[in-house]
Order: sequence, then structure tokens, then C-alpha cells
Amino acid sequence: MLVVAGSASPKLSARVAKQFKCQLVRPTLWRFPDGELYTRIPTELNGEHALVVQSTCYPQNDNLVELCFLLGAAKDLGAERVTAIVPYLAYARQDKQFKPGEAISIRTVCKLIEHAGADDFITVDVHQEEVTRNFSIPAYNLTAMPLLGRYLNGLKLKNPVVIGADRGASERAKQIALEMGVEYDHLEKQRVTPEKVVTQPKRLSVANRDVVIVDDIISTGGTIIEAAKILRRQHARGIYPACTHPVLAGKALQRIRAAGIKQVIATDTIEHRVSAVSVAPLIANVIH
Amino acid sequence: MLVVAGSASPKLSARVAKQFKCQLVRPTLWRFPDGELYTRIPTELNGEHALVVQSTCYPQNDNLVELCFLLGAAKDLGAERVTAIVPYLAYARQDKQFKPGEAISIRTVCKLIEHAGADDFITVDVHQEEVTRNFSIPAYNLTAMPLLGRYLNGLKLKNPVVIGADRGASERAKQIALEMGVEYDHLEKQRVTPEKVVTQPKRLSVANRDVVIVDDIISTGGTIIEAAKILRRQHARGIYPACTHPVLAGKALQRIRAAGIKQVIATDTIEHRVSAVSVAPLIANVIH
Repeated sequence: MLVVAGSASPKLSARVAKQFKCQLVRPTLWRFPDGELYTRIPTELNGEHALVVQSTCYPQNDNLVELCFLLGAAKDLGAERVTAIVPYLAYARQDKQFKPGEAISIRTVCKLIEHAGADDFITVDVHQEEVTRNFSIPAYNLTAMPLLGRYLNGLKLKNPVVIGADRGASERAKQIALEMGVEYDHLEKQRVTPEKVVTQPKRLSVANRDVVIVDDIISTGGTIIEAAKILRRQHARGIYPACTHPVLAGKALQRIRAAGIKQVIATDTIEHRVSAVSVAPLIANVIH
Repeated sequence: MLVVAGSASPKLSARVAKQFKCQLVRPTLWRFPDGELYTRIPTELNGEHALVVQSTCYPQNDNLVELCFLLGAAKDLGAERVTAIVPYLAYARQDKQFKPGEAISIRTVCKLIEHAGADDFITVDVHQEEVTRNFSIPAYNLTAMPLLGRYLNGLKLKNPVVIGADRGASERAKQIALEMGVEYDHLEKQRVTPEKVVTQPKRLSVANRDVVIVDDIISTGGTIIEAAKILRRQHARGIYPACTHPVLAGKALQRIRAAGIKQVIATDTIEHRVSAVSVAPLIANVIH
């Protein structure tokens, strides 16, 4: 077994190789003057199990094409099994037609990865579990929530409660809370009088408690900033946004900090300075 | 039949639609804040033959992924037949392993296009004809050389001769020359004494003649500028570089002009201000 490190996942690749105590291969990657990517895996792969680790964070299309070239090269080099490890799967939120004529882009992305040369596929906290059904190869979705919970336990929060940023994040909040041994809930729009709708935790009070807000992705930061406002109005103490994928597009992190949030907790599915938790142990658990 | 216009080929798409007197569909394409592409084909495609026209010029990976999404969307929308028209095929020069471990990237690119949803495939003057064998769907390579020859005839050159930029361009030079009814040759390294090697036309004299230098691609311009130098030393009159694909990376066109070459003749496989010749009639000829 060896790990081929995609350029979007240099640290996670090294951590996965360390978990397996196997060789880490850094491919040669550069651009021709016209912009085409040059790709070379400078290692003997014959008969090996190659783990190609490449996130498809921004720039998504470049990272996706590089992933496909690495998968194809590994296969051409005679690897017996090629596992695509895509810790953050781009386009996963484009999984439905909201208007007629819309591309279900994630369906195409899955086809590209499969036909480029993957024998099996692993991702982490994909937006909807159903996405893995686009593959005809074995495809696994792992969850980083227990790892986030363990990390949060180390922060010594005061009477903490875990709140999903919306109903869709409720199950993720539950998984963190179970690991932390604390209560959980999610934010929901509720009609308090015939005229008035408010967003608030469905069941629990957050007053004087440290609150972990959970989502799979923090992208523009809009959802988290709005949630923090609501929770502060209800007298929450500290606000701790936790997510698997720190997309943090553009100035998202600055805006989150400007909203008085000191720390974002995230994993290395996207390698960012807020990536305090590694998903490498998850990956090591699932591959045999 | 209708034409779906990829964002890299807006003019060629319109010209192809005009050739077929069929509907031109401009898809809705924009970027989410995180950089993901949104793709929608706002037309009924059920039972139709959709021609998806998209060059994979720079930025190659973005244009390739957009092409795949358009092919997938056309198929999902119920098109009976989806033809991928990729007038310039990126990565075609990465068709061999020069060093062990190198990705044969064009092989992967062909797989991606095919499995994204193409039923057949058309390209123009691909670097090596053999590239089409990477497809298991019907795949055609057309040549724009006769169209370039016809355009060059309109320029009223003085006693013209057509010279391939190297041995590989010899057949292309022949096709232009046949259309123009003039002589052709190609540049070749020749040993004139045991110590001395010179590059020169293999058979013909270019003295006092207008010279058309032919290549499939003008990328950095290096080959053309070098060829022009050699031909001027041999007393060529005007120098007219002609190619199918005006890649013209970075400052290539400025450097070509600084070398005293006034005009580059190219086609709209890549839409550039030097694209004086359209390949739309070629495409119209081959699709039934």
C-alpha cells in the first residue's frame, strides 16, 4: 500500500501514510506554458494498492481534473487497486434539479472519478448520504463528527450544548453530542403567534451555556453568523462553530470573526488554518 | 437538432447553428460564492439531437468540466443523441509516456468526455490522429487545412510556397498546398558537412517567395519565430504563419509580431482575434 498525495491534500496525505506506516508519494505536478497540467507519479506501482488522496476544494475543477489524472496514472502504472479518497467532494450540493434543465453536477463528478480509474471511493461527511449511490464501485461516506466531539471535549466548555445550524444538521449535532456526553438540539423556524415566526432551538434553552453550532460545511459563513445572533439573543455564553469542511469562501473567516466568534473548529478535509482535527484516523479505520 | 453553446465557443456555436439552421441554446452558467460552477440548459431537449460545442482551450480544466456538465445535463434532459464537438482538444499532446510514471492525460480526458454523456465525438486537427482511438464511442478528427488554404488564396501571396514547421507538419502543409495549387515542403535538420547541421526546407528554395509556415498549434510562438528566422536567412519574402489552433499562450502574439510577422492565420477552434477562418462548415459536413 502507498499514498499518492494530491496537491490539495498534502498534510492529510502525510497523515494517512503515517496511519498505515506506508510510503508517501508526492507526484510531480506543474503547468505547461499554455496552462495544461503535467502529472507524473515517480514510483513503481505494479501490483500495489494506491490510495490517491485529493480534496476537491477551491479551485474545484483544477483539483478534480488533477484527481482524475492521478487515478488514471496509478491505474496505467499497474496498481492492482486504486482507492480515490476525496475528503471534501465538490458539487455535492448540486444533487437535485431545482429548476428544469439544471445539471445534477454531482452525478457527473462521480462518473468522472469512477471512470478515470478508481476501484473504490471514500469521502467524508458528504452533504447528502445518497450521493454515494451515483457510483457503481464501492463508495463510502465517513463522518468526522465523533472526532470533532472529542476535540471539543478538550476545550473545557461551560455546560455545553450542541445545536445543529438547521434541521438538516440535527443528526450531525447528535453525533457530536453523544461523543461529548451532552445535550443537543437544532435551530428551527417556529410560529409563536399567528403573526410571528422566530428561529430558535427546538427544545432546549441555551442561556448561560457554551454553544457548539454544527454544520457540515461553513461556506460564506452566513448561516453561522445568523445562528450566532439568534443564540446570543437567547443569552448563549460562548459560540463555537464546528464543521467538517472549512470552505470559508472569500472573506468568510473575517466576517465570522467580526461577528465576535473567536474560533472555528474544522477538519483537514480542506486544509485551512482552522483545520485542527485530522480525518486520517477515520480513513485508516475503513480501509483493509 | 440544436446547438448548446459552451462558454469557450460562443461564436463557433452560433456559426454551427447557422449552418444547420437550428436553434442555438445558450446555457445559464455562473459561479457560486465558493467557486463551484452552476450549469443549466434552459430548453426542452427530449428526443432531440444535441450538439454540445465547447473548446477546451485555456483555462483547460474549467472548460473541460463545463463540457462534462453540459453533456451530462443534455443526456439527463432526455436528448436522444448528444454529440460532443470539441474543436480544440486539451491535453492531446500528452499522449505518450516520455518518462516512466507520466500520466497519459489525454487518455483520461477522452474517458471523462465519453462517460459524462457523449454518444459521439468530433474534434479538429488533433495533434495525433491516434488520439481518437481512446474513445469507444464513434470519434472523428476533421482537418481545417483546406479551409486555411482557401483563405490564404484570398491573400494574393507572391509566388507562394507552403512549408511545414517540422516533419510532423509536412502532411498538413501538403493539404494546404493542394488547396492553393502551389508547392510544399517542410523544415528539417540537415547535416551539410560532418561538423555542421542546419535547419532548412528539405527540397525547395524559398528565395523571393511568400512563405506560409504551417503547424497544427501555435502555442508559445517559439517554433514559428525560429522558422521565420531560418526562412528569412534564405531570402524568403513575406512570412505567413498558419495554424488551426491559436493557443498563443501569454505574450506569444506580441513576440511573433516583434519578430516582424504581421499576420497569423488561424481558425475559431480557439476564439481569438486572429481566428479569421471558421471550422463551422467542416462540422456541418460531417454530422448527419
